[in-house]
Amino acid sequence: MTSALDPVEFRRQGHMMVDFIADYYQNIDKYPVLSQVDPGYLRKRLPESAPDNPEPIETILQDVQEHIVPGLTHWQSPSFFAYFASNVSIAGFLGEMLSTGFNVVGFNWVSSPAATELESIVMDWLGNLLSLPKSFLFSGNGGGVIHGSTCEAIVCTMAASRDQMLSRIGGDNIGKLVVYGSDQTHSALQKASQIVGINPKNFRAIEATRSTTFALSPESLKLAISSDIEAGLVPLFLCATVGTTATTAVDPLGPLCDVAKHHGMWVHVDAAYAGSACICPEFRHFIDGIEGVDSFSFNAHKWFFTGLDCCCLWVKNPGALISSLSANPEFLRNKPTDSKQVVDYKDWQIALSRRFRAMKLWLVLRSYGVVNLRNFLRSHVKMAKLFEGLVAMDQRFEIVVPRNFSMVPPTTPTSNSFHQNGIEINVEKCTNEVNCKLLEAINASGRVFMTHAMVGGMYVIRCAVGVTQTEEKHIAMAWKVVQEHADVILKNNGDDGDANLKLPLLDKIA
Amino acid sequence: MTSALDPVEFRRQGHMMVDFIADYYQNIDKYPVLSQVDPGYLRKRLPESAPDNPEPIETILQDVQEHIVPGLTHWQSPSFFAYFASNVSIAGFLGEMLSTGFNVVGFNWVSSPAATELESIVMDWLGNLLSLPKSFLFSGNGGGVIHGSTCEAIVCTMAASRDQMLSRIGGDNIGKLVVYGSDQTHSALQKASQIVGINPKNFRAIEATRSTTFALSPESLKLAISSDIEAGLVPLFLCATVGTTATTAVDPLGPLCDVAKHHGMWVHVDAAYAGSACICPEFRHFIDGIEGVDSFSFNAHKWFFTGLDCCCLWVKNPGALISSLSANPEFLRNKPTDSKQVVDYKDWQIALSRRFRAMKLWLVLRSYGVVNLRNFLRSHVKMAKLFEGLVAMDQRFEIVVPRNFSMVPPTTPTSNSFHQNGIEINVEKCTNEVNCKLLEAINASGRVFMTHAMVGGMYVIRCAVGVTQTEEKHIAMAWKVVQEHADVILKNNGDDGDANLKLPLLDKIA
Repeated sequence: MTSALDPVEFRRQGHMMVDFIADYYQNIDKYPVLSQVDPGYLRKRLPESAPDNPEPIETILQDVQEHIVPGLTHWQSPSFFAYFASNVSIAGFLGEMLSTGFNVVGFNWVSSPAATELESIVMDWLGNLLSLPKSFLFSGNGGGVIHGSTCEAIVCTMAASRDQMLSRIGGDNIGKLVVYGSDQTHSALQKASQIVGINPKNFRAIEATRSTTFALSPESLKLAISSDIEAGLVPLFLCATVGTTATTAVDPLGPLCDVAKHHGMWVHVDAAYAGSACICPEFRHFIDGIEGVDSFSFNAHKWFFTGLDCCCLWVKNPGALISSLSANPEFLRNKPTDSKQVVDYKDWQIALSRRFRAMKLWLVLRSYGVVNLRNFLRSHVKMAKLFEGLVAMDQRFEIVVPRNFSMVPPTTPTSNSFHQNGIEINVEKCTNEVNCKLLEAINASGRVFMTHAMVGGMYVIRCAVGVTQTEEKHIAMAWKVVQEHADVILKNNGDDGDANLKLPLLDKIA
Repeated sequence: MTSALDPVEFRRQGHMMVDFIADYYQNIDKYPVLSQVDPGYLRKRLPESAPDNPEPIETILQDVQEHIVPGLTHWQSPSFFAYFASNVSIAGFLGEMLSTGFNVVGFNWVSSPAATELESIVMDWLGNLLSLPKSFLFSGNGGGVIHGSTCEAIVCTMAASRDQMLSRIGGDNIGKLVVYGSDQTHSALQKASQIVGINPKNFRAIEATRSTTFALSPESLKLAISSDIEAGLVPLFLCATVGTTATTAVDPLGPLCDVAKHHGMWVHVDAAYAGSACICPEFRHFIDGIEGVDSFSFNAHKWFFTGLDCCCLWVKNPGALISSLSANPEFLRNKPTDSKQVVDYKDWQIALSRRFRAMKLWLVLRSYGVVNLRNFLRSHVKMAKLFEGLVAMDQRFEIVVPRNFSMVPPTTPTSNSFHQNGIEINVEKCTNEVNCKLLEAINASGRVFMTHAMVGGMYVIRCAVGVTQTEEKHIAMAWKVVQEHADVILKNNGDDGDANLKLPLLDKIA
């Protein structure tokens, strides 16, 4: 058997795989966007154990096509509007190939200087594109690092803030520390809080209401903090969000920092999805106030064309991260580290090992250039506007909150309540059920995939634009799919085909 | 501008990249294994900001060759013997391409059923290859998950154990929990312990000595635990290692479990490097006693040909992980999850998002087959034996501990002490300095890259075999490089070129 990394064979199989994936992209429109398989489908199709003998790549690719592709939900389909997109591009793909090909483990500078240095450079490039204050850049004694996920970024910054605080108030007081977000904050905050040992009783998800378009109110934060201080607790960490998952709400960074900083808290900004847009001057205002926070992260793997995973985190005080996360075993000792002239990213993250993720960010920035990247993002926002306009023309739907970026959350309308046959009906609940059925029907069609959110008691259907190949025609088609199913479901009173009238006639309510 | 994922352009650039990487592998022997650049080299070569306009892939690849490659330490070089290898293969590379191409975000089953199901299946396959007890497999109500790193695996299992324990002893007692390993345990344990909020005072790195070939002694563990219990502390977590970083020592799992289980502790086994070898029947005994532990992890990205990152973790009680790591926000609610018929891996790990890492493991297992995979591993062990034999024939060197797997840790010999001109000389310190200089000279040659460890006060030079393309000729060459530099340095008394005799004449000591 030839070497498992024989260059001739690598070339042959590599070319085959490029064509396989190119074909996949070419045909992606033909697959149901949401996988239609049943739980356990794959175990029935695959052998019980690994094969003893080698199998040719041709056989394996055939199995991928026959058994894996049907079980995929196609995140790169132009008709994928679920969650937030996780978009890839040719440049992102090629960057990942290089990273995989070199397969260096860049835990410290010496283990591959290029991996560390390119990361520091592109994080400064990107920080400048976002007009981050200099204090977040290496040139301003801050700096950026690429993590795998927002949760990791929050775990690391929260651990840093926890240890800073404990060094002030005494190491035995971890049980007093309190973490704050809104009830719209991503679940990553709660999870991070659980992981770093914050008492679950000390996690605050402060209600954000429709009156603030679901942004966290500084006044509510202030009240929560006061009440905790009165109870003898210690406010530690605030996670503000720019672009929440449910409605892309934007927490007001400046006023929130004013409150938090008064109590010496660490403020992190999670702009996982919307951060990308802030490279466009017209969207930059959404992160106004960023100068007051301690750390800021966004996921280039969502809406910046790198592919998974690439969470960009900037901190003002890398020393705080390093102090919490460093471990300096003898086997990693080396002269450049001892000289303190270099960055050792192992001390900025959870894991020791790290992939060369900067490569794909560098390729994306260079292959498309800033002008085009901004235009890509703007085109997604424009398509979301188009969808918003289509929704607005249909009286059966309303849009619950103003659109900020490339996501539109429509719902069928509610009124307060009404009577049917003398019985008071909770319309909100009924409407939620109708919307839920509508969304299920839409997704079961396989023609588009959208997901839902609950905001202020309302079940909304989210249409999030952001896939690389989505064009206006896909938006028009998506709306057509929604309307077709609405025709059936709203006419049948929330029941697609079943003749029993379980729900009130929504037409009459409106 | 065409779409950033245009299939025609994807194909063109993808083929170009396959050739670029194939050329890299073909020429990898020509580069210095350890990068020879100086700190800050890259910032001098790259522009200050991201380009406004697109640059062609041809230009970018030229820059990769001119500016990135010199800054790489070539982990895929057949003459890389540093740390532990992180080997890639054609199958691992292709698996990563597929994963990147599909770019699905498999946080729960519905977001891409194939990603979840394939992971469960290959983790069962691999668990069977390792002859793990059924209690670690899905068929036995345990299960496997792929993490990014050992540290993540330890963070998650330790958080699970912490929360289990706190539910027994009361949530306010986190400050009493104690974590144990040996002083040979990987730094990931200490880091994980810091992250999950264990008081740094409660981290125990129990000394392991040459008398146990640097394995953790159950008797020492027992003593440490007793002393902690006497002090009112609560033993929580033991990390045992199979294949330590410094010397590939193997902690005795059975006897350690006997001690730990007596106190209701969670026992994790970190077999990051050596776990792979245990698919060969002749090495399986190194994990004897595994039936007593709670969790077990090894890094397929080290010595199992997948490329970064692929840490395989099995647990007996997934419920404990899920209970600590789950967050169930409304936007992720879906029928399959509600039905409890599916695995949602988001609750088995830190991040929400996750790549389709199972793909590369599946491709590796199928492309090579179990028989060949075992033979690959055996060939690395055989090459390490060859190196060991060469060392043994040279009286200037000794091997400090028996070789277990594919790593050999030689050092130049020490004696207890001796006198020169009437002054007592600390030979150990001098020998360590000589070895350090020797290793620096070896690595500065660019012909091989090895790293060091300190064990029992001795500075040893580690030669770890495991790169995919390493052949016997590279071993012979590596030893030749060591000898050539030893000729100069040992002859010059630890000083390569400088005429001053700072160190005693080692020839005379021997």
